[in-house]
Order: sequence, then C-alpha cells, then structure tokens
Amino acid sequence: MSHGSPSENSILERILKRMADSTKNLSGRAAHLGIGDDAALFRPKRGHEVILTCDWFLEGTHFLREKHPPDAVGWKCLARALSDVAAMGGVPRCFLLSLAMPESHTGRWLDAFLGGLRRASRKFDCTLAGGDTTRQRKILINVTVVGEIPNARAVLRSGARAGDIIYVTGRLGEAELGLRILRSSRSPVRPSNPFLKKHLYPDPRLAVGQWLAEKRLATSMMDLSDGLSTDLPRLCVASGVGADVENEKLPVVQHPSAGRGPGVDPLQLALHGGDDYELLFTVPWKMAKDLPRSLIGVALTPIGRITERPGVKMLEGNGHERQLVAGGWDSFRNTR
Amino acid sequence: MSHGSPSENSILERILKRMADSTKNLSGRAAHLGIGDDAALFRPKRGHEVILTCDWFLEGTHFLREKHPPDAVGWKCLARALSDVAAMGGVPRCFLLSLAMPESHTGRWLDAFLGGLRRASRKFDCTLAGGDTTRQRKILINVTVVGEIPNARAVLRSGARAGDIIYVTGRLGEAELGLRILRSSRSPVRPSNPFLKKHLYPDPRLAVGQWLAEKRLATSMMDLSDGLSTDLPRLCVASGVGADVENEKLPVVQHPSAGRGPGVDPLQLALHGGDDYELLFTVPWKMAKDLPRSLIGVALTPIGRITERPGVKMLEGNGHERQLVAGGWDSFRNTR
Repeated sequence: MSHGSPSENSILERILKRMADSTKNLSGRAAHLGIGDDAALFRPKRGHEVILTCDWFLEGTHFLREKHPPDAVGWKCLARALSDVAAMGGVPRCFLLSLAMPESHTGRWLDAFLGGLRRASRKFDCTLAGGDTTRQRKILINVTVVGEIPNARAVLRSGARAGDIIYVTGRLGEAELGLRILRSSRSPVRPSNPFLKKHLYPDPRLAVGQWLAEKRLATSMMDLSDGLSTDLPRLCVASGVGADVENEKLPVVQHPSAGRGPGVDPLQLALHGGDDYELLFTVPWKMAKDLPRSLIGVALTPIGRITERPGVKMLEGNGHERQLVAGGWDSFRNTR
Repeated sequence: MSHGSPSENSILERILKRMADSTKNLSGRAAHLGIGDDAALFRPKRGHEVILTCDWFLEGTHFLREKHPPDAVGWKCLARALSDVAAMGGVPRCFLLSLAMPESHTGRWLDAFLGGLRRASRKFDCTLAGGDTTRQRKILINVTVVGEIPNARAVLRSGARAGDIIYVTGRLGEAELGLRILRSSRSPVRPSNPFLKKHLYPDPRLAVGQWLAEKRLATSMMDLSDGLSTDLPRLCVASGVGADVENEKLPVVQHPSAGRGPGVDPLQLALHGGDDYELLFTVPWKMAKDLPRSLIGVALTPIGRITERPGVKMLEGNGHERQLVAGGWDSFRNTR
C-alpha cells in the first residue's frame, strides 16, 4: 500500500475535471450523475428506442502504446463505438468509459487521452455519463455508447433483399494504409497526411446513417470495421442473401504510389483493410436512382447488388468472377 | 493466421448457443438483436428512466484464474454490476458482455463461465443483449447493465441528511472471509461453506433496493463493494454530511473461530472487507421505526446516524471515539 500512488478516486477526479463540460445533466436531476454515483440515469425521448453498443479498445490489440498518440486513443475509442450507432441510423446520447491503466500513465498520458476523448464527445454530442476505473499493467479501454432512435426505425443487418443495390460511404482501405504509415514510422507521429488521420481520428458516419434511417432508404446497414471481405458476408448471412461486387466500382484509396510500391494494392486495401468505419448499406434498386452521389461531403458509392444466391462474388473487369474470401480483421485469426 | 483457431464469430456463436434462452426479444423486433448486429435495441417502459452501469472484472485484479471456478466468474461479473442497479432502486433489464480471453479458454472454461452467467441472467431476469469479444493473453471482462426505474424515483448517494439513520443489509465481512478461505485452499474449490458462497456467488439486493425506492424510505443509497470504511465516507462526501457508526451494532460475521484465530477479527472484516454487495442506505429517523428488521430474509440493521459534522466517527462500546480510516478495497492502493 503506497500512499503516494493515485487512487481510483483521484483518477475519477481527473476524468471529472478534464471532462467537466462534457458531463452535463442527463436526467433533469443531479449533474455528473453516474460519475460519483452507483450508476448513471438517462431519460430517452418518448417514442424512442435505446441503442446500446460496447467496444473493446485494448493496448496491443487495437492500438500500440508507443505508436498511437494518447489523444488519438481517446478520440478513437469513442468514435468507433459511435460508428455502431451510426450503423443503426441512431443519434448518440451518452457513453460509459471503463478505463484500466498502469499508474505510470495516470498523469500526462491520461490528460492527453482525455483531451482526445473530450473533443470526440463534443463533436458528436455524446456525453460522458459514468464508468469504471482500475489499475492494470496494460491500458485497457471499454466504451459503451447509448443512443436513441424513433421506435421501429433502426436499420438492421438483416433487411437486405435480392436486387437491392449495395453502397458504401467514403473510400475503403484508407485507414489500413494509415496504419501501415504509422507502423513504419520510427517515432510518435502527428497526423500529417489524410490516411494517417483516417486511421487515428475516424469520423463515424452519423449524419449519413441518420439520414438513411429517417428517409427509410436503407433496407440494411452495418459499419465497416473489419474490412469489406469480412463485413459484407456478415450482412449477407444476417439477411439470408448473397452479393455480387464489381471490383472496378470500389472507391479505393487515391495514393501517389498506389499500385506501384510493394504492398500498396488499392483493391486489396479496399477489400481487406479494417478500421475504416464507413457505412455499408443496401437500397432497393427503384430508390437507388434518387440517392445523391454524396451527402454532407461524404461519397455514397454503389459497388454491387444483392443476390438470391448465397455467397459473395467479385466481378472483375475482364469478365472473370471469383468468390470473395474474408481477409479482414478478426482478432481471433490475426495478431496484427 | 491459423485456420484451426476459433474466430470471433465462433466465440459469438458459442455465447449465443449457451445463452440462447437468455437472449430474448427486447424491442419487439428481431430476437438476438445486438448479438450479430451492430448494436442492441432496448425499449424502456414509458415514464421510466434508464439506469446504466459498467464494471470491470479482470483476471488478477478481481479474480484469479486458478482459484476462482469459471462458473463463479460468470455469475459474479453480472451480479456485481447488478448490485449497482440495486443501489439505485432499479429493475435490471439487459446487459452487454465484453469478453477478451486466450484461445486456450474458449472451450471448457468458456462453457462453464457461460453456465454461471446464464444462471445469474435467469435468476435476476436480466437478458444478454449484445457485447464484444476479442483475444487476449489474460481473461478480461466488462459488463454493462441496463435497468429502469420510474422517473425521478432513483435513490442517489447524495440525499443523506443529518439525523438520518444509517442501515446496512445482511452481514458485513463475509465475502472477505470467503476470499481468505479461497486463497488458502490448495486446489479449485466448491462453495462448501456460506462465506465462500458469499464471495463467489454474491446475491445483489435488488428486491430490497426496489422496495426502498418504491416506498420512498431511503434518502440515500449505495452498494458496499469496497468495504464500509471506504464506501460510507463516499456517501457522506456526496451528501455533504458526516456519520457516527456504533461498532457494537455492526452485523459482523458469525464464525466459529472468529476473534480467536489470527487474522479473523469480525470488526475489521466488517469495516474493511470488500465484495459484500450489501446495500448501505439512510432513512429519516421518523420513518426508521417503521422499517422491518428484515425483508425477504435479508436483515436490515441500523448501524449509526448521519451527522452535520463531516467525517466518519466510530463510537466504541467503552465510550471511546475514533475517526474511521478507509481500509477497504481500492485497486489503485492495494494489489490484492
């Protein structure tokens, strides 16, 4: 027992202090409730369902202590959980932060982490409502995000029907390219290029998701966290359908050395790169013609079509077809 | 990349299979939503607030892989989070399970873990709604519990007033004694005695908490997770009050060797033992006389009184007084 060491209470105090303006009154009663009480209270809007999602963000698995700036760790642990709310078409309301860390990181590292977390919390209007802290050798983070959506309006993975057009937002593979840049750099980095920024500070597609749900345009939706080749089959299985994807339509990375340097194959990045946090969704073909090419600056790109036949097929430009094999991120298969 | 190793998907499938009857329709739509979709949907009752709480349960910090039966790990990770809902006076509805583990434990250990989790889920009527799984060297668990309570009825820590009578449920220190028995045993144990059972399979005081909230009897409430000497000062600080506790009134452990063997001091156990998951609450003195001595088999024991003067004082039988010094569980001070 060392008296000089910060206690759980002092970690909580630090979080409270740094996140003060992000912990507002959620229930019309005491402020900061949940931080300093047994649990948080949240009063959803009438006629709304509550959206619940939680995400691990673990040192060594999801980020590297020496490579990822603490500010980006704070931003991303919230942003990626928010992406799940975006994928339902919901509006985020509050989050719970579970944080375990070594004492050595409860000073400057924690402050920078909370800085990034606070920026994401403000930008996406998602309030810190509570959490749990403890000591660990490794930095362990778990974020639970609570959102809401009008009753029966949430877009599920299971609604895709044969003939629907498959869309993705943004560009695929950029975050993976950013991760490669980060890994090959020798020292802690600043997000000096857009790929690095996409990897470090993903921008969950909340506005697009909400728009699609509100307009009832999407029959199914999910976010691309593990790569298209892993996630599209998941959507297909949930919907009991298959898919044809046209290689040439994929919005791949635009990179000066793409296709020239070794290891930078834009198609492979687009198919198998993880962490993009773009949306994958399906739209009935009759409604697809009314869909804009972009929304609030985010491209909406048709990449193929849902089929009755199960399995995901890649249609190549030369008329060849092949089965799409999952090569995305799965922490029980890779050790990346 | 090894093809024989279980993937995240197969872990999820195992959870789904074992918890099948605990993952019922939460929102009036698809069953199992959240497991297999981006997020879970939950429709709270009209006029109710949502209670949100999350809790770490980490190997090495909160349980020992070699000492704690996996069935008990499954039970306890949910039960202790439910205790936070009890402490608000709420009714649990569903939970999210974040689970990280080594591949070596995704077979028998996981099955036994899910067995205990399912029993707790059924007993306390709290449905698995979603979660996140990943691979780690250590077993890491984070549980988010979602409950509900009529608007403005939740009992907070901050409502204690001078003159209120301080109560606890059950007996204090039993779980700590159970932990000592567990630690001194040579092999994996079966809960053959009540102290061990209290440590391994805590029974969150949901019915008592709900009764106190419904009858508007409690001015403040919290659960005893870190020991009275740590938790009572927290309640006092939150309420801006102090407390006088009468040593002789504490419901200490009844143990054949208590007070005789070395290390088993019932008073010290009651003051500083953690993990009891009993409720600590305050009742206006005028209403205290109407409080039964026990409720649904759980003792309700007055142990002292809230004071205007800050600080927590122990009143000893011999007329002596002393300041209560926190000696309970705080993971940033202890390494237990």
